[in-house]
Amino acid sequence: MGFTLLSDETLDDLQLKGLFIIQKKNTFRFGTDAVLLSSFVASHMRYKKKTSIVDMGTGTGIIPILLSAKTEADQIVGLEIQKSIADMAKRSVEGNDLENRITIINGDIRKAKSILGPVSNDIVVSNPPYTKVNSGFINADDGKTVSRHEVCCTLMDLLQSSFSLLKPQGEFFMVHRPERLADVIDSMRRVKIEPKILRMVSPKVGKAPMLILVKGIKNANPGLKILPELILYHEKGDYTEEARLMYSMGLESE
Amino acid sequence: MGFTLLSDETLDDLQLKGLFIIQKKNTFRFGTDAVLLSSFVASHMRYKKKTSIVDMGTGTGIIPILLSAKTEADQIVGLEIQKSIADMAKRSVEGNDLENRITIINGDIRKAKSILGPVSNDIVVSNPPYTKVNSGFINADDGKTVSRHEVCCTLMDLLQSSFSLLKPQGEFFMVHRPERLADVIDSMRRVKIEPKILRMVSPKVGKAPMLILVKGIKNANPGLKILPELILYHEKGDYTEEARLMYSMGLESE
Repeated sequence: MGFTLLSDETLDDLQLKGLFIIQKKNTFRFGTDAVLLSSFVASHMRYKKKTSIVDMGTGTGIIPILLSAKTEADQIVGLEIQKSIADMAKRSVEGNDLENRITIINGDIRKAKSILGPVSNDIVVSNPPYTKVNSGFINADDGKTVSRHEVCCTLMDLLQSSFSLLKPQGEFFMVHRPERLADVIDSMRRVKIEPKILRMVSPKVGKAPMLILVKGIKNANPGLKILPELILYHEKGDYTEEARLMYSMGLESE
Repeated sequence: MGFTLLSDETLDDLQLKGLFIIQKKNTFRFGTDAVLLSSFVASHMRYKKKTSIVDMGTGTGIIPILLSAKTEADQIVGLEIQKSIADMAKRSVEGNDLENRITIINGDIRKAKSILGPVSNDIVVSNPPYTKVNSGFINADDGKTVSRHEVCCTLMDLLQSSFSLLKPQGEFFMVHRPERLADVIDSMRRVKIEPKILRMVSPKVGKAPMLILVKGIKNANPGLKILPELILYHEKGDYTEEARLMYSMGLESE
């Protein structure tokens, strides 16, 4: 299978099981958060085989593609509201010969339940827009803005929709920014997705965290496990062993 | 001033500005959490002089005594429900000649507003019981149980009462266990004490946190700052510089 590329796109080697991904030259390029989230899911998912996963707001499709390599999930759906981006993700899936495991659907997270039908899923994952829209001018037609700000979907929209897609005791995984931790925990509780595992990600020992990884379980009892902090770089700037593993094999070291 | 000691009590040197504290031989001995909480308060309180602080569930009075050394607060009230323990705390305050700054009151946290009167306080602090009472046999007459389990006061009781004691934009500080983080954040939000600063405390680099330190502000806007993790020990078991400073000068290193 080949990859069809548009003029504003690049084809990038994921250095993982021969996989590639199509990205936009300037926007819609995946980051550390997608790599960390997919490893966090692979390390802490309870279901191992015949698993169905939905990625809410899949963008380039990076998370479904990484999850196809890092897990044995056999049905991964990526939902993306922006048509041109969903089309790009579809081409990445086809180019990697992953159509039998990954389906990209162009649609709105808030309507996920009616789009995806009455199927109950084992796992929902998301790398959502991080920034709350409070005030000021936001251009909702700008794809970059949609992916970074809660224009099309607030945290509560995402969580309510995720809850509706999950089977009882189904698992929810998300990466977010530390400054939103109170919003994340509060909102998860409100929709009855109980926070069960939390991991902070810091660039170096002694530095403030830059990301949080959280796992929740639908209708579970309270009780949160906070894991040892994930440190990405040694003092001198080279990857720690655990970060290096996540970029290659994809699992946490413990 | 001398210290009157009962037969089941010890007199212990705090190694801080000549201060001492009376403790029970087996129970009611202060721990790392009191030292860390008082340093966290001293480092992150906005008010510096002429400050009024209430310590909810003061036990031995360790937190008011440490705060008298680590801050310039001039009115510190320690509220303790168990009469014999409150009496012991009073003797520590008197023995240290701190009656002009610290008042120990025997009373119930849930009735704090009526006990302390209509005064609005700058700061409320607490090192509360960590364990939720779910089921099973709990002996509410046992002082140790009262200090460790939510027998006399749930987290929501504590927070509601703290809210009522605080002036607008007043500050709330608490130490708690990581497994209760979701309860802490959720409950703080419910009473309109917004979580603003969070710090995890781990024994060593790469270990899971053992304590969480949290600061909230009454009626503040959302937005949480997560500080770099506080590490207590080096690999070989000696205190880190920051932990050592907290036991002596009492401030965080940054």
